Amino acid sequence: MNFRVLTARGQARLGRMELPDGRVVHTPAFMPVATRAAVKGLDLDDLALLGTEILITNLFHLMLRPGVDVVASLGGVRTFMGGFRGVVAMDSGGFQVYRMDTLRSVDEEGVVFRSPYDGEEVRLTPEGVMEAMEAMGVDLRMVLDEPSPYPVTAHEARRHMERTTRWALRALAHHRKGGYGGAVFGIVQGSVYPELREQHARELSDMDFDGYAIGGLAFGEPSVERNRAVEAAVRHLPGDRPRYLMGVGYPEDIVDAVDRGVDLFDCVLPTRNARKGTLFTREGRLNLRNARHARDEKPLDPECSCPVCLRYSRAYLRHLLKTGEPSAPRLLTLHNLWFYMDLMRTIRHHLREGTWEDFREGFRSRWRTESPQEEDHVGSPIFSLGGGAGSPQSPA
Amino acid sequence: MNFRVLTARGQARLGRMELPDGRVVHTPAFMPVATRAAVKGLDLDDLALLGTEILITNLFHLMLRPGVDVVASLGGVRTFMGGFRGVVAMDSGGFQVYRMDTLRSVDEEGVVFRSPYDGEEVRLTPEGVMEAMEAMGVDLRMVLDEPSPYPVTAHEARRHMERTTRWALRALAHHRKGGYGGAVFGIVQGSVYPELREQHARELSDMDFDGYAIGGLAFGEPSVERNRAVEAAVRHLPGDRPRYLMGVGYPEDIVDAVDRGVDLFDCVLPTRNARKGTLFTREGRLNLRNARHARDEKPLDPECSCPVCLRYSRAYLRHLLKTGEPSAPRLLTLHNLWFYMDLMRTIRHHLREGTWEDFREGFRSRWRTESPQEEDHVGSPIFSLGGGAGSPQSPA
Repeated sequence: MNFRVLTARGQARLGRMELPDGRVVHTPAFMPVATRAAVKGLDLDDLALLGTEILITNLFHLMLRPGVDVVASLGGVRTFMGGFRGVVAMDSGGFQVYRMDTLRSVDEEGVVFRSPYDGEEVRLTPEGVMEAMEAMGVDLRMVLDEPSPYPVTAHEARRHMERTTRWALRALAHHRKGGYGGAVFGIVQGSVYPELREQHARELSDMDFDGYAIGGLAFGEPSVERNRAVEAAVRHLPGDRPRYLMGVGYPEDIVDAVDRGVDLFDCVLPTRNARKGTLFTREGRLNLRNARHARDEKPLDPECSCPVCLRYSRAYLRHLLKTGEPSAPRLLTLHNLWFYMDLMRTIRHHLREGTWEDFREGFRSRWRTESPQEEDHVGSPIFSLGGGAGSPQSPA
Repeated sequence: MNFRVLTARGQARLGRMELPDGRVVHTPAFMPVATRAAVKGLDLDDLALLGTEILITNLFHLMLRPGVDVVASLGGVRTFMGGFRGVVAMDSGGFQVYRMDTLRSVDEEGVVFRSPYDGEEVRLTPEGVMEAMEAMGVDLRMVLDEPSPYPVTAHEARRHMERTTRWALRALAHHRKGGYGGAVFGIVQGSVYPELREQHARELSDMDFDGYAIGGLAFGEPSVERNRAVEAAVRHLPGDRPRYLMGVGYPEDIVDAVDRGVDLFDCVLPTRNARKGTLFTREGRLNLRNARHARDEKPLDPECSCPVCLRYSRAYLRHLLKTGEPSAPRLLTLHNLWFYMDLMRTIRHHLREGTWEDFREGFRSRWRTESPQEEDHVGSPIFSLGGGAGSPQSPA
């Protein structure tokens, strides 16, 4: 994999990732989450419409259903999905250690889960993860890691970090010995402790990974702590490798992290929120279940040019959502992902044009931070992704 | 509404329905079911892809959610749906009298339901139905009827039929007095009793409806009884008006009914079965949950040229279905509706080309009738909609 930084504004950078077969990802990029080799509610045509150059899948879930051997025998994950032409990243499932009720044990060898489907025991090891990703032809491969929960003591965080290092060494050795393809990403741990993040970034940098993920964040820590941890990690990661901040986040979090030198993002927020009826708009977040939208002819976001906003009213979409019509998750997901993809295009535009700082400041002052559970407010400040200048004319 | 029979083969006929504003429906036609102003899982682009010239909605459901006034205030049902360019038919909800747990009472005035959402009482009267459909700008309007359950005595069936007649008179009088638009369809009742069907068809014909529905069938009666009832009704309906067989049915039922002079159909089978994983293919019905499809690279139907069969394997679609991915209902529904739309195009082709009898006989001998609950069989006879001659070259 070839990664080039095309231009930088402070730590923020515009990049271009090119795979050996010519597929390209323009960064900073948001990777829609396709846990089970499908973005919930969408199909490949929808992803193409969204301009999806890269998405991220999950090994743990695919191991359980349909099974690595099924995906492999169907020609690998991209072919299995029906011929996805973009880049497929895959997380190992280390994250699931702290998010599933199914964890059995973690020891030096690896992680043991109990399948939520049939109770069967499933073991993940650093080597097994690399083998499975090779079998499925994954493009960007996350090693198995042990993320720290939040909050965690520095002592505990160091223990997780050190095991993550040992696992990273085993994974890389196995990958290289096997002559495997694809790009391998190490994962920086160290919770919210800058000194641990720095140490871990240095250690992993020495291993010469193709890219670096920053894990163990977006676990509920304050953004000031997250930003400090990201800064500490990025400062000690090689400048010529892509950096991926796992599980982040809200639009404001993404802007913060781009400003600190992050290139890749993934998050379930736009997709999960869509299914619940929380929509991202340039006026802030909108709760479509709110009764005041019942007769509203306006699109979800009057400034949006997504296929859903170009056609459907809030009233109709609310009706679909409230009556449980199965078309609602798809249409609302399309809008939210369009919003995120448009945000990334706008970010790239301002990096390219040298207007990053203006955009960033305008964004911070105008973007309303509110919890997705809150009702949306009427008359909230209008936010324009283009920083007042409208949409970018030549998105990357 | 202008309806012309272009050509006939025995009772079977090729027709063309044209609305005053120029919208056209080629018959025989299948109307996808859009109970709540949405075909479950699909959006308007999907419907366009399927060549949907007409669909059918349900007044009872729309009254409850989002409410007639909401649909009306959003510009009527077609605009509310996001600008559907085809023809919208609407059933009154008389059918729901026998299908909902929510029926409170039926008396001469009309029907009272209890809303499954909030317990509120909802009254449907022949006049109210016409008013609601006028408010929503419905193109083809079914009057309120009282269908007989199955089985039913001839005495009871006559009682339902006579009330349906009185309600039809009231509906038509109200429609005409109000100077309403749209086309109004009377509904022939009489259960499986040919003499009642004949009598009712005669009575309704005298009222000069724009079209005629045949109701109270597809309630579990044997097809031989259904066919006899349809024959008796059709024989006494005017030849220059479209005939709509409500709720029918399986492909073989549709071929039977076309052969008896029916022009319009609707049924939840292709959509409901799709969501359950039962797919219509030219080899018979396929149960996608069957383990033997787990690694099958083939499309659902190798003879099918729908967008789903052109891209996705049975293995992938089964994976989506089994893991509850919200994209599964859409993709499987697209395939099943494509199958039905293709069947109708094939039927029109053979009527136009004068090969109807050959097609019908080939269809009857080769189409496997099996319950949708049964597993599909390997090596069942291959069925070609084109009667051995491939797909029609110039579908109407």
